[in-house]
Amino acid sequence: MILYVLKDKSDYSTLVEKLNENSASFKVLNLYGKNLILAWPDQNTKGIIDSSIEIAVEAKKSYVLASNDWKKQPTVVTVKDVEIGSKKVIVAAGPCAVESEEQVLTTAKAVKRAGASLLRGGAYKPRTSPYSFQGLGEEGVKILKRVGDEVGLPIVTEIMDTRDSAIFTQYVDMIQIGARNAQNFSLLKEVGKLGKPVLLKRGMGNTVEEWLQAAEYILLEGNGNTVLCERGIRTFEKSTRFTLDIGGMVAAKLMTHLPICADPSHPAGKRELVHSLALAAVAAGADMLLVEVHPRPEKALSDSEQQLTPESFEVLMDRIRALARALGRDA
Amino acid sequence: MILYVLKDKSDYSTLVEKLNENSASFKVLNLYGKNLILAWPDQNTKGIIDSSIEIAVEAKKSYVLASNDWKKQPTVVTVKDVEIGSKKVIVAAGPCAVESEEQVLTTAKAVKRAGASLLRGGAYKPRTSPYSFQGLGEEGVKILKRVGDEVGLPIVTEIMDTRDSAIFTQYVDMIQIGARNAQNFSLLKEVGKLGKPVLLKRGMGNTVEEWLQAAEYILLEGNGNTVLCERGIRTFEKSTRFTLDIGGMVAAKLMTHLPICADPSHPAGKRELVHSLALAAVAAGADMLLVEVHPRPEKALSDSEQQLTPESFEVLMDRIRALARALGRDA
Amino acid sequence: MILYVLKDKSDYSTLVEKLNENSASFKVLNLYGKNLILAWPDQNTKGIIDSSIEIAVEAKKSYVLASNDWKKQPTVVTVKDVEIGSKKVIVAAGPCAVESEEQVLTTAKAVKRAGASLLRGGAYKPRTSPYSFQGLGEEGVKILKRVGDEVGLPIVTEIMDTRDSAIFTQYVDMIQIGARNAQNFSLLKEVGKLGKPVLLKRGMGNTVEEWLQAAEYILLEGNGNTVLCERGIRTFEKSTRFTLDIGGMVAAKLMTHLPICADPSHPAGKRELVHSLALAAVAAGADMLLVEVHPRPEKALSDSEQQLTPESFEVLMDRIRALARALGRDA
Amino acid sequence: MILYVLKDKSDYSTLVEKLNENSASFKVLNLYGKNLILAWPDQNTKGIIDSSIEIAVEAKKSYVLASNDWKKQPTVVTVKDVEIGSKKVIVAAGPCAVESEEQVLTTAKAVKRAGASLLRGGAYKPRTSPYSFQGLGEEGVKILKRVGDEVGLPIVTEIMDTRDSAIFTQYVDMIQIGARNAQNFSLLKEVGKLGKPVLLKRGMGNTVEEWLQAAEYILLEGNGNTVLCERGIRTFEKSTRFTLDIGGMVAAKLMTHLPICADPSHPAGKRELVHSLALAAVAAGADMLLVEVHPRPEKALSDSEQQLTPESFEVLMDRIRALARALGRDA
Repeated sequence: MILYVLKDKSDYSTLVEKLNENSASFKVLNLYGKNLILAWPDQNTKGIIDSSIEIAVEAKKSYVLASNDWKKQPTVVTVKDVEIGSKKVIVAAGPCAVESEEQVLTTAKAVKRAGASLLRGGAYKPRTSPYSFQGLGEEGVKILKRVGDEVGLPIVTEIMDTRDSAIFTQYVDMIQIGARNAQNFSLLKEVGKLGKPVLLKRGMGNTVEEWLQAAEYILLEGNGNTVLCERGIRTFEKSTRFTLDIGGMVAAKLMTHLPICADPSHPAGKRELVHSLALAAVAAGADMLLVEVHPRPEKALSDSEQQLTPESFEVLMDRIRALARALGRDA
Repeated sequence: MILYVLKDKSDYSTLVEKLNENSASFKVLNLYGKNLILAWPDQNTKGIIDSSIEIAVEAKKSYVLASNDWKKQPTVVTVKDVEIGSKKVIVAAGPCAVESEEQVLTTAKAVKRAGASLLRGGAYKPRTSPYSFQGLGEEGVKILKRVGDEVGLPIVTEIMDTRDSAIFTQYVDMIQIGARNAQNFSLLKEVGKLGKPVLLKRGMGNTVEEWLQAAEYILLEGNGNTVLCERGIRTFEKSTRFTLDIGGMVAAKLMTHLPICADPSHPAGKRELVHSLALAAVAAGADMLLVEVHPRPEKALSDSEQQLTPESFEVLMDRIRALARALGRDA
Repeated sequence: MILYVLKDKSDYSTLVEKLNENSASFKVLNLYGKNLILAWPDQNTKGIIDSSIEIAVEAKKSYVLASNDWKKQPTVVTVKDVEIGSKKVIVAAGPCAVESEEQVLTTAKAVKRAGASLLRGGAYKPRTSPYSFQGLGEEGVKILKRVGDEVGLPIVTEIMDTRDSAIFTQYVDMIQIGARNAQNFSLLKEVGKLGKPVLLKRGMGNTVEEWLQAAEYILLEGNGNTVLCERGIRTFEKSTRFTLDIGGMVAAKLMTHLPICADPSHPAGKRELVHSLALAAVAAGADMLLVEVHPRPEKALSDSEQQLTPESFEVLMDRIRALARALGRDA
Repeated sequence: MILYVLKDKSDYSTLVEKLNENSASFKVLNLYGKNLILAWPDQNTKGIIDSSIEIAVEAKKSYVLASNDWKKQPTVVTVKDVEIGSKKVIVAAGPCAVESEEQVLTTAKAVKRAGASLLRGGAYKPRTSPYSFQGLGEEGVKILKRVGDEVGLPIVTEIMDTRDSAIFTQYVDMIQIGARNAQNFSLLKEVGKLGKPVLLKRGMGNTVEEWLQAAEYILLEGNGNTVLCERGIRTFEKSTRFTLDIGGMVAAKLMTHLPICADPSHPAGKRELVHSLALAAVAAGADMLLVEVHPRPEKALSDSEQQLTPESFEVLMDRIRALARALGRDA
């Protein structure tokens, strides 16, 4: 496979003709303001040159669009007015699950005051047990939206079913793909088509390469507004809920132009560990953090052990800011 | 939570009344010909007795219905005339992906002749890379159906999207949930509602307990025709594609009444290893095997390294039969 | 590096001369009755031919001597009159730890009667906690030896310290390297020098390739009487104590000429799982099993959960024999 | 088991008498200037009180001495004049392997100039392959010692064999136990007896709890000068050599009073990742770093991919200092 990055405003009809003549298959895309053509197989694209081509990149990896082989400068994903992947370390915070408007509003005000830029909260909840609280669904999404509007924070929440597209298109600013759907390829394609910014979690059993390939599914639908989120992998170690793979996150940063987020809450499993994991992720270069905050964690309907209180979150934000500045960033 | 197994043909309206009086929540189900009531929370069900109750089982695990705490005898899942979980070790065989009617027909005849009881083949293919062959989709399902009918083998194939329910209901005898959708809870619920026999793969990053909880999602919709399929987990070892967790499979057998299948092809990754893994699984107590067979593996559009030739499959079936008999089973 | 397998009784002095002339480094060994010369680096051995050379094998792997690139026929390791790697599946059985002469004697008689060929038992015990029973040490070795002699079973027991060589040389028939010392290279070299048959366990965090490299340390000292023992690896799954890597064992069999043993007791962790794991290992091609048996498991000073009673072991031996025969082997 | 922390300068002979009267077993230790008595079993120590006892701590864990149940304040380990576990983040740097005096001297001067406090270097090298460079052994230790003296840096190097105790006692300031010997209990006991400061690496297949139990072996010999070193665990992820378990490191800090070190070089495997992992470890609370630096990494006899150049190390030290200050520490 070869990736042609086309010159701006160039007419690529001759190139398309040549591909057709050579019986090559191809797909035309527009990503980050650039026209792109993916063409294959190699024997049918060999020797093709055209004045519309800015650069031709041989696709050595199975994640061509997500790789930085063709796009050297880091991508900045914009969610309303929030820029992810720029100098400022962006923090999304909020409860694990949307439980009530009052709960979300209290949290939203507190995290905004402390410096969060996005409001997170689960409405459709992927729960290991069918007997656990399954979330408020559509009603939860609407609560998030109302609170986000009131407080002035864009919202990020998880989609679980392709049949829910319309709801997410209407109400949600950034759509999360959870770890358990990290290789739900139907959902990845669907979210790619919706065009909204995506927060793509890494599956707990997925390699970094598979994570980038999952992103490729989204980009291949023409949606380049994708942020990768490391949230811990499955290992033999049981003193933490999951093993936050800082090394994998750093390795990913060297392979892709997409911004990287870290979720310190799920791997911690216990709130005592959240601060240290959050700071480690920022020190390692994370562009964004996703932190669970609940006004009364001990009463939370899910993940009560790992959610921070608003007070603890405020302290964390101070520490993140100090750290970010020491690294030449901002928060 | 408590599980009431009700006496056959008993009137449980008084029990329902008592639960309502105590403000308990409950769900009425029919599984394996038994009426069941799941009721919670514990403080609201304490002390309730009723003549309709055969046994009351305290639900200590998050997979009550899938556990053998209440149903001691193993479940036999019937797919058309094929019994899974009985004395005979059942083998489902066929190509990784449906590529053409000719390919499926050749394979189906060969595996039937060798002793397979079910025809497997992928129509909707979950592929790690978006650039890999994505399967023939609906057309592939129809090919499988036609071939299955012609050859006289029930078919098993994978569903990937809740929006495809109608196709699977119409054409498919046993619906497979793949490893990558093992915690796609929307899909699990949907498949539970369809009522058809389900082959539920374990996710590559999932524990045995999570696998049983995934089955619980299906059973809770009233569908008890579920077979669990071990297909290898993610570990550090790289001489095999995945690590077939024979121990986890055996542990699961001690925890559940559901039949257990093993897929030796995916963990092997290389066809030289498939026979040994298949035999090991049968020796460890597997009720069913899922084996990839392709008429010309080297030309396969997916997983070409691990598919057996029809000749090799025939040898394997002979070995499985010898082994099964030595264990007091049949194949 | 290149491996020269020399013709029987040939004079290789000219070859040595040529190597010296080319400033190549080399090591002369005798393994399995063959004279071998390992020579390196490649640029200094290029073009060397000599009439003493039977075959010259380019060493592509870091486990040249352990690989079957040069030795195609499987190695049979002989411990007194017991042949490991031949048609018969060999079973070594006995208590986790030597606790008293009476305990060992009772067990030894029972396992011999049931068909075991070797007596196992721990004298020097590698315990995760310093507060656990550390074994009887030298006294334990002597008890094993006396009982082995009385009952007529060769003994296998674990060495933990290079300083204990003399004791093992004097009393022990087969020296075990435990999982926790699987990469204790000083100990591997020392055991290689002792010349006694070795049972080399795979480390719980080691790949198959590292396991073979550990064996290479022993073979490189001229000791080819090495049996590899799979005993479970560390994975995220917790329903078993370790994950018995049947696939890794099968992969190893394709890479090496050395016999392979499986230990079903440690990965099981619970005695209910031991039979199934043992049978799976035999079905997958294990040449030997290492099984923990204790006259009163519930009173055992270590691993009480996973040791079989003599009665259960007898049943297991019957099942192993039936299985082995179905596979064209013996037990 | 119970741990009696005794009052300073108190006479504990009456307590010993009482333990003897009750037929309790016990061990007397002196750690961190405190007299301690470990006594067991619980039924024989019940009700014992004595005026010499400052506090009695019920040992709920298998790492009593290493836990912070009895010693709340963090331990500071002193290597010559270097304090590990105090405000300053200590960096030990040097080549993977000692290759020559010139190589070590060049490196030592450079790392000292950049701010390192300890000189590291491998003399006895645990190599996965017997054909890899095995280190200079005793000669390597002497080179390290001479260079350390000349440059004014205490040295840390790895012991592999109990028979080498005398050499380490004579020449080495801090003795390292490597990952592959992390459960070599004979070596742990021996190093405990030597009394010198110990740097104890976590085994690549060991849990945090097992790591603390390994430390307990050392402390139980009366040697409290132990620093724990996280160096990456074995997981399925292959974009890094090992997975640096930052979460496990943080969890350990909550469980023990011992200082914690992180080795960013081995998990990285590639030098591009080392800075980010080092910074992440410091942000997460590491008291010490162990960094591989080589004057000409591309010519190194081992681990050439992951060693930093002196120039890159200097940049890293600047970044560490900035980070440490932002966290209220020093470096």
